[in-house]
Amino acid sequence: MSSDDLDRQLSFLREVDQLKGVIRQSPLLDRSRKENSAEHSWHVALYAMLLHKYAAAPVDASRVIQMLLIHDIVEVDAGDHPLHLSGPDSQQADLESQAAERLFGLLPAEQQGEMLALWGEFEAGESDDAKFAKVLDRFQPLVANVVTGGGTWAENGVTLEQVKVRYGTTIQRGAPELWRLCEQWIEEYFSREGRVERDD
Amino acid sequence: MSSDDLDRQLSFLREVDQLKGVIRQSPLLDRSRKENSAEHSWHVALYAMLLHKYAAAPVDASRVIQMLLIHDIVEVDAGDHPLHLSGPDSQQADLESQAAERLFGLLPAEQQGEMLALWGEFEAGESDDAKFAKVLDRFQPLVANVVTGGGTWAENGVTLEQVKVRYGTTIQRGAPELWRLCEQWIEEYFSREGRVERDD
Repeated sequence: MSSDDLDRQLSFLREVDQLKGVIRQSPLLDRSRKENSAEHSWHVALYAMLLHKYAAAPVDASRVIQMLLIHDIVEVDAGDHPLHLSGPDSQQADLESQAAERLFGLLPAEQQGEMLALWGEFEAGESDDAKFAKVLDRFQPLVANVVTGGGTWAENGVTLEQVKVRYGTTIQRGAPELWRLCEQWIEEYFSREGRVERDD
Repeated sequence: MSSDDLDRQLSFLREVDQLKGVIRQSPLLDRSRKENSAEHSWHVALYAMLLHKYAAAPVDASRVIQMLLIHDIVEVDAGDHPLHLSGPDSQQADLESQAAERLFGLLPAEQQGEMLALWGEFEAGESDDAKFAKVLDRFQPLVANVVTGGGTWAENGVTLEQVKVRYGTTIQRGAPELWRLCEQWIEEYFSREGRVERDD
């Protein structure tokens, strides 16, 4: 690789340091603060490393990990797009496409093409690898909500039915065994919530 | 996989959430705060994805990425071991070995063995993959120090010679082209620092 390539790669790697400052809605499990998108990306990549056998169809774990390492990089420009507080999807999609062009555009041509393709594959969510990456992008925050007694569900008054649509559709399609476990957690959480509300 | 396996995997993935609360000495590039070990792990994995061609010997990028995703997990129990403020290495090594046994021990037997082996390979730093993973574990904080006008070097009164030993030995061995660039940055930084000191 040329020294110009290295300059470009380092420019990208410096620029995406900002992902550590993009705050998500999800809590850390100790509830001390909200998670940022860089930590989330590390955690879901680790989920992929350990849970890829639960994918509905065989996946290339290495590709899923790499997809998850870059899946949120567009948030450096476009910001986080919270699941329960979102504006129009089309507007966000435009912002994210522009962000991908600018950020991956910092890289040398060959890697720029590779990264754009990998990010585009994740966004499209059609390949088996992308379907499973999307499972984990829903499953990890779901675990956080369950562990912290509601997390973003409690904060946003999310219903059982909304959870089933917003998480279940993606998780069930790409990892049915994980979704069966989620269903138990969710039923338990909302039945407890229901009791609490009735006790008020 | 059995449902007991999944319970164990999730127990591990919940436990290592604490890595987001392990604070390193390195600054974020915007100097707003110190970096935590989960963010650092994400960032160095991304460095591996983009820079593996600079390794002195061919490496398996996927293995290097996975090694870097888990390399600091022992810090959940053992804490960060700052490069410029360290106590006895042997004591820290014992703490980290115990941490690896406990944390990876949460996993099902097969993954426990795989993760312990991968972490042990990183720690030993002998294989080509581990040598390059160790390069990036030094290179990424070096970039942060250069970008932030000194970072941990300025805070700890680190000298040019100490930087050459503490970073150079590892980086030069595993990625000589990256070290040539580091040398330029370092010479420039310390010659500027020298001028500043002489001006005092």
